[in-house]
Amino acid sequence: MTKTNVVLSIAGSDPSGGAGIQADLKTFAANGCYGASVITALTAQNTTGVQGVFPCPTNFVEEQINSVLADLDVQAIKTGMLYDAEVTKVVVETLKKHFTEKPMPHLVVDPVCVSTSGHRLLNADAVAVMISELFPLASVITPNKSEAEVLLAQRGAKFSISTLEDMLVAAEGLLSVNCGAVLVKGGHVTASLVEVDAMKRKFPEIDVIGECILGENMEILLAASPNATGPATRLVVDVLVQQNGVKAMFVHPRIESTNTHGTGCTLSSAIACELAKGVSLEKAIGVATMYTHLGIQTATPIGKGYGPLNHLHSISSSLVPLWKDYVQHEFVIQLGKGILDRNRFVHFIKQDYHYLKYYARAYALLAAKSASFKIIETSTQTILNVLHEIGNHKTFCEKFDISEEELENTPESVATTAYGAFILDTGIQGDVSRLTMALMACLLGYGEVGLWLKKQSEKENSWVILEGNPYRHWMDEYAGEMYQNAVRLGLETVEAIAQADQPSAAKLKEWIGVWEKCTRLEKGFWDMAMNLSP
Amino acid sequence: MTKTNVVLSIAGSDPSGGAGIQADLKTFAANGCYGASVITALTAQNTTGVQGVFPCPTNFVEEQINSVLADLDVQAIKTGMLYDAEVTKVVVETLKKHFTEKPMPHLVVDPVCVSTSGHRLLNADAVAVMISELFPLASVITPNKSEAEVLLAQRGAKFSISTLEDMLVAAEGLLSVNCGAVLVKGGHVTASLVEVDAMKRKFPEIDVIGECILGENMEILLAASPNATGPATRLVVDVLVQQNGVKAMFVHPRIESTNTHGTGCTLSSAIACELAKGVSLEKAIGVATMYTHLGIQTATPIGKGYGPLNHLHSISSSLVPLWKDYVQHEFVIQLGKGILDRNRFVHFIKQDYHYLKYYARAYALLAAKSASFKIIETSTQTILNVLHEIGNHKTFCEKFDISEEELENTPESVATTAYGAFILDTGIQGDVSRLTMALMACLLGYGEVGLWLKKQSEKENSWVILEGNPYRHWMDEYAGEMYQNAVRLGLETVEAIAQADQPSAAKLKEWIGVWEKCTRLEKGFWDMAMNLSP
Repeated sequence: MTKTNVVLSIAGSDPSGGAGIQADLKTFAANGCYGASVITALTAQNTTGVQGVFPCPTNFVEEQINSVLADLDVQAIKTGMLYDAEVTKVVVETLKKHFTEKPMPHLVVDPVCVSTSGHRLLNADAVAVMISELFPLASVITPNKSEAEVLLAQRGAKFSISTLEDMLVAAEGLLSVNCGAVLVKGGHVTASLVEVDAMKRKFPEIDVIGECILGENMEILLAASPNATGPATRLVVDVLVQQNGVKAMFVHPRIESTNTHGTGCTLSSAIACELAKGVSLEKAIGVATMYTHLGIQTATPIGKGYGPLNHLHSISSSLVPLWKDYVQHEFVIQLGKGILDRNRFVHFIKQDYHYLKYYARAYALLAAKSASFKIIETSTQTILNVLHEIGNHKTFCEKFDISEEELENTPESVATTAYGAFILDTGIQGDVSRLTMALMACLLGYGEVGLWLKKQSEKENSWVILEGNPYRHWMDEYAGEMYQNAVRLGLETVEAIAQADQPSAAKLKEWIGVWEKCTRLEKGFWDMAMNLSP
Repeated sequence: MTKTNVVLSIAGSDPSGGAGIQADLKTFAANGCYGASVITALTAQNTTGVQGVFPCPTNFVEEQINSVLADLDVQAIKTGMLYDAEVTKVVVETLKKHFTEKPMPHLVVDPVCVSTSGHRLLNADAVAVMISELFPLASVITPNKSEAEVLLAQRGAKFSISTLEDMLVAAEGLLSVNCGAVLVKGGHVTASLVEVDAMKRKFPEIDVIGECILGENMEILLAASPNATGPATRLVVDVLVQQNGVKAMFVHPRIESTNTHGTGCTLSSAIACELAKGVSLEKAIGVATMYTHLGIQTATPIGKGYGPLNHLHSISSSLVPLWKDYVQHEFVIQLGKGILDRNRFVHFIKQDYHYLKYYARAYALLAAKSASFKIIETSTQTILNVLHEIGNHKTFCEKFDISEEELENTPESVATTAYGAFILDTGIQGDVSRLTMALMACLLGYGEVGLWLKKQSEKENSWVILEGNPYRHWMDEYAGEMYQNAVRLGLETVEAIAQADQPSAAKLKEWIGVWEKCTRLEKGFWDMAMNLSP
């Protein structure tokens, strides 16, 4: 057994369980860490507001920290509400006392000053102490807009944050207090893709993490996240600056929700968990912001209305560029322009004919593996859809003077065998969910391509040509209602499977592996067509 | 999505995370409930002891309860450390105030008086208040030995608990305070199977839950639980008495561990979760005692050194009688006595020949489904073992004048087809873990039978006859080192699979289904032999 990582929260208590040490403990559990928690103050609060605060005597805060650190091997600490200057001082002194000889664990400071509902949670005199005493110990501090403003005001800089550039200026201003890094959270700052692009141009040195999810050709995948506001015109952007000079913006679609109680606690706790595991700060924040921004504030890492495909992208950001390599392939672009070389299309369509036989067999295997009539029915319906697609292939092929006999006798290319056999092998090896995942990259990708080309064609002076395009029938097919319905059915199936048996970390990793492989094989399939590879 | 059950803990805080509201929140999360927590007192403690206690002002306890109950729809409440009479009173009054018009949620009262490490956690004056005011609201109270003694002393009954019967007397004494039920916990009372049997004879009206796991023929299954003390000579028994007259004893093998910090918090929290889900009290306690006694005090429901097979039995106690129906089948007993009808054995051995072909094919399928050389190797090794077993069959058959040709030409009985085809179908449908589970009932059961007959034969005046027993070679085979090694390999494989991907609730349910079906099919196989069924 691997050692469990221990994370300590030093914060207030929220009896209603959504914020404070309660949210911290739930986040620690959800992220696989053992949670300890020192209480600085009790509150009486719920989702409607804070009804009261009762501070813990400073000597008892010290006693609690002593009990924990004398016994447990803590890998990361997060601080939340510290209530006042005395508590803040005693936390600093007690931590320093324990870590004179051994190095301080990673420290994430959430400089809680004001609750989401507007209640003042940190006395004014404490801010100065927090800045001068606690921040220098911190790996990262995580103020939101109001907190950053309060902290800057304390440093003599009256400053109101309303744009991304303001956030960057604020973060750099706060970095001068000598903490390891500053993450200014953008939950209360509205941003758009246009602003992100402007920032990228003005500050090319900033890493932009997550924006790839916001471009074109992500419509079907984002449909798996019902609460996201369409093609992400409204964003949440968190801005990170570090002492080592590396800067980053973390970009997420804004999820419209009034349920933001405890978001800050969750984020800082999730960062602490990742740091405890030994992950770099930038990567830790990437994981933690995604975890938090998707609104997963409980111990349930999946479900609650966000689709598993969307989660795959959240967890492994490397998947999105792969997806774009596939759905925005040169083959697709030339096809849309109507300039694709005829031989390349013919090579593609012949190989696709072979591929679709594997694909139909894989759905038959899915039906054979199923224990429910529902999956047997949808699998069978999909086989019928594939046979319909095969009919279309024959129609194209007739137009291109290819007989059915020639189709059958065309030798299978390596790329076709690789993809087809991989799907069937995945079906043999794993359970229904794994095979379903292997079938999705093809189904969803062609739907995405069809939709993208259609939307592009509807723009003025579009590069996509419909009139006289020899491949128009192919485009119409995948943009059409029948295929798009099949896409919806596919998304529903994945959703239903994930809901019925929420995937474990190991299973999610398995799914990511299958999805990644299929996306690569799809790209390889179009490479094969472009290169006329045998 | 189904509604999440909300459970509220009213208790002290343990900053080291092993007890108090921290343990409660972890237990709620592990049992799928949303946790809220009102803090009555802060402690400074860790696994070595309690270093300090700081009580929360009573009015702030009230404020916290108000905040929670004004906002959340709580289905169950547990109380832990209430510190003193004032806090106890205010908890009672505030709860009563909120539930004048609507019914009180299930209330589990853990009457915490003394910590595991011996620290007094409840002032003496509070005990009387707890008894007269709080207990009448409780669905169940859960004192341990010391707490039951303190509570009884308060009622004027000086009484020391040292036997199971003492526990029953104590529970009945406490029931007279007018709470719904009393569960006297046996963690500090040593009990043996002999005592449980004596109690059963003396009080036949008491339901005994879990003792079936303790009898003979459970050796291999219990081997999956490495910390259990062999064939369970030392037990933990919890005694329940209810106002409706129904009584029960919950019996578990004693797990030797010094890590009992927080056990009481975990148990009462787990009971509250089950009650919140609408489960009956007796069933809730069955689930919760198993959860707790197995030492699973964190949010990780599986792992930590207890085998998944053992867990299956924990979760579904209906599996154990089925297991005994299989491994203590009349066929086995007559075989051990040497009086089994020759025709029945011949029928069995012929059908087993067919079955073993399915069984070998299933291991080949397992290898085909595997992604690791380790599983490919163990599967292949097992196929070789099966082929060796087949060799033995031929040897038996020669002795019984059955030629290989006759073996091959014997028509397969329905029971054989049912079992063999079920395993192969399970292999087609599911993943590696599911198929492995389907292969275990046969492997482990025959190992258990071999071991049992051997151990019985070694007793004086045993009913198992070795000298002149026509089936002795068969018995030696399954008790022998080669087969028992195969059993160990099988257990290790299941263990490794479960560790690599800790099963979700849905997956555990699936495994239980497979295991149960296989156990029934095994029993059916021997029924077929006894009845000479075609």
